[in-house]
Amino acid sequence: MTVIVELSIVPIGEGVSLSGLLAHAVKELQRHGVGYEVTPMCTVFEAESLKEAFKIAEAAHESLFKAGAKRVLTTVKVDDRRDVERHMEDKVRSLREALKKV
Amino acid sequence: MTVIVELSIVPIGEGVSLSGLLAHAVKELQRHGVGYEVTPMCTVFEAESLKEAFKIAEAAHESLFKAGAKRVLTTVKVDDRRDVERHMEDKVRSLREALKKV
Amino acid sequence: MTVIVELSIVPIGEGVSLSGLLAHAVKELQRHGVGYEVTPMCTVFEAESLKEAFKIAEAAHESLFKAGAKRVLTTVKVDDRRDVERHMEDKVRSLREALKKV
Amino acid sequence: MTVIVELSIVPIGEGVSLSGLLAHAVKELQRHGVGYEVTPMCTVFEAESLKEAFKIAEAAHESLFKAGAKRVLTTVKVDDRRDVERHMEDKVRSLREALKKV
Repeated sequence: MTVIVELSIVPIGEGVSLSGLLAHAVKELQRHGVGYEVTPMCTVFEAESLKEAFKIAEAAHESLFKAGAKRVLTTVKVDDRRDVERHMEDKVRSLREALKKV
Repeated sequence: MTVIVELSIVPIGEGVSLSGLLAHAVKELQRHGVGYEVTPMCTVFEAESLKEAFKIAEAAHESLFKAGAKRVLTTVKVDDRRDVERHMEDKVRSLREALKKV
Repeated sequence: MTVIVELSIVPIGEGVSLSGLLAHAVKELQRHGVGYEVTPMCTVFEAESLKEAFKIAEAAHESLFKAGAKRVLTTVKVDDRRDVERHMEDKVRSLREALKKV
Repeated sequence: MTVIVELSIVPIGEGVSLSGLLAHAVKELQRHGVGYEVTPMCTVFEAESLKEAFKIAEAAHESLFKAGAKRVLTTVKVDDRRDVERHMEDKVRSLREALKKV
């Protein structure tokens, strides 16, 4: 079943601006062919299982070392719901629907 | 200076589906008039200072208790950069630009 | 009622080793007189309210800028449970008790 | 090289008290024979590689579904530093040393 994943990667000690290094991580998401969404604070993607989610997170994390980083802090948050099948857009839609009733 | 904030609120023990409760938190962001973006895993908003960011996070957090929650786990991540003024869209744009060069 | 708080502060672009800067943040916890615990990945402390928790987190965050940081990423996670009064040691004790039964 | 890992697991919709379910996750850390530390907000452990870290996090996450959970939110934060070999106790010691100089 689909898991929805929030990925946040922070290279430590590589300057104040991070986008040059972080682009390598996003490139890995593209290579793996998963649906993803870049936000101002993290990248959200969808995977077929927790195993796949961690495999992709690992590839993204490693890409920063290949690009020269010496220390990387990576946070992977997984929302794994098994009572119903749900995709990224379903979560946002549910919230928007609920917002109309508040 | 602008701070960019990721907010994630999880009511504990209120059922598997959370959007009904989380809508109260998003409503608070609207009431405070800040720019925000709902993502499948968190909500990102922009505030004028750390103090304002925490004030808004507090209002969002409290709204779930008012709606009946007994336990709430709230995560606030603040990106505070003071060498340059930057907004939510700037971070996404920088990453997109960097992605073209990888 | 007591809230339990996880604080994680990451200065960006200040070298690979962070303890020199992070010490300023821990110093703020001491100044505020709260009970805290340093772990290998974060610092956990206890506050009397969410408002106090955020006030202390703000002081800790600001201390890094005073020490010269240009960009700081601070994550504050608050566990706020209002059905029972609970302290830091209660959470660890509950888990240890539960572990005996697994 | 050693990676230091923060693990936080939250079962959604299984009541206000979580320790009974979370004990299954800690049991998995014991089964894998890694050094770990339970804190009031998370569990920190040490693994030989990112791959091993994610394997253990996956086992811990799955243990909650085996125990009956329907939705689980798991956060894995990895501190991966490759310029020097460092263990959990080294990070706490560095911070304590730095604290003496502030």
